[in-house]
Amino acid sequence: MTPPIIILVRPQLGQNIGKAARAMLNFGLTELRLVTPRDGWPNPDAGPSASGADIVLERAQLFDTVEAAIADCALVFASTVRRRDLVMPVIGPEEMATQIHASPQRSAILFGPERSGLETEDVALANAIVTVPINPDFGSLNLAQAVILLAYEWSRRSALSQPPAKELETPAPHGEIDGLINQLDAELVAKGYFHPPSRTQATRNTIRTIFTKTGWSSREVKAVRGIIRALVGPSRNRSET
Amino acid sequence: MTPPIIILVRPQLGQNIGKAARAMLNFGLTELRLVTPRDGWPNPDAGPSASGADIVLERAQLFDTVEAAIADCALVFASTVRRRDLVMPVIGPEEMATQIHASPQRSAILFGPERSGLETEDVALANAIVTVPINPDFGSLNLAQAVILLAYEWSRRSALSQPPAKELETPAPHGEIDGLINQLDAELVAKGYFHPPSRTQATRNTIRTIFTKTGWSSREVKAVRGIIRALVGPSRNRSET
Repeated sequence: MTPPIIILVRPQLGQNIGKAARAMLNFGLTELRLVTPRDGWPNPDAGPSASGADIVLERAQLFDTVEAAIADCALVFASTVRRRDLVMPVIGPEEMATQIHASPQRSAILFGPERSGLETEDVALANAIVTVPINPDFGSLNLAQAVILLAYEWSRRSALSQPPAKELETPAPHGEIDGLINQLDAELVAKGYFHPPSRTQATRNTIRTIFTKTGWSSREVKAVRGIIRALVGPSRNRSET
Repeated sequence: MTPPIIILVRPQLGQNIGKAARAMLNFGLTELRLVTPRDGWPNPDAGPSASGADIVLERAQLFDTVEAAIADCALVFASTVRRRDLVMPVIGPEEMATQIHASPQRSAILFGPERSGLETEDVALANAIVTVPINPDFGSLNLAQAVILLAYEWSRRSALSQPPAKELETPAPHGEIDGLINQLDAELVAKGYFHPPSRTQATRNTIRTIFTKTGWSSREVKAVRGIIRALVGPSRNRSET
């Protein structure tokens, strides 16, 4: 039920940051995060385009990496068209809204730079791709429009106020999954797993997707980290076993 | 099922007419009607803002009055905030879309001038007022945004908007998950991971739950099995890496 955080990844124009803030506030979203905006932050062009949504801009938080921006979020969506280079769920805005409403934890939606959209590495950090189904012969949504449609879809459902799903354990925040992936990555590097070098990035994306989709809780992430330590460590068979 | 006609009543800026056309075409709407646009028609400012939705502008029809513009429509909605001076139904976008889809005849949605919105006389011509439910403390939708939200809501229900297929890889059969768990178990036994013996069964249950809930596909199970082999194996760092 907590409103999603809107994360603009490497946005180019301050004007579009302002428009996104305005789009958000129309539907009650107030948490904006910016990952390395091209022209720095604050940006004097943002305010005039926000048409009064200044509170969103004033509270906007700045991050150096997408990983840092989503570290406290358990559920992350990448707003983009389908990516054929990644095997991950592709859902529509309705399904996204349903998942956000069902989650008792923080969620976030990533939007890429105006011109190019999210990079594969950004998308790989998300739990799912969310795509607004548009005219296959004319797809031309700008950043603020993508934001407003997803914000609207979220707010459509907030009146219904569905009770949060009775999960046994809630999924761990992305920061913890990240820690697990980094540990695994370091061990795999030590073992010379990434070979040839030309395939390394693709393999890393695959590993990230595999472990991001698990829905593991904090306790389970800890358990898996212990398993990885055991696998790479020396045998500690004891006489009494 | 016929798509609604979008009618801009006395629009002020050509730029906004172009943006509305772009918003429409994203969701498959192509019929635009203009009632006495302030700066005449055609307007050279419209094209550049349409971002390629030129076909909508080229086919736009010009009318002198709202009455003439809606003469062939059986179902007309006025997009505005609630009007306390009129006794007529006020519905949300969803209900509007339902009615449009249920109607075998032409329908239209009226949008007023950017600054002032529809006049009472315009609204009175409609069958119902349609209002996008927005933040009561910050309602700031511009013309193109109002158009895109209603166009989106219409298209959500049409064939065009079948949510993108979740072409996920299907989860692997349980036998494959079993194979993964058995492999992991054997490696963990070799490392002396299960200790003390009294906790072994509980730990095994935990591991089974952790890996069963992942939803991994056959391909992903294979990848994880490769990762486990790499973690327990000798380093195979190559000179060229």
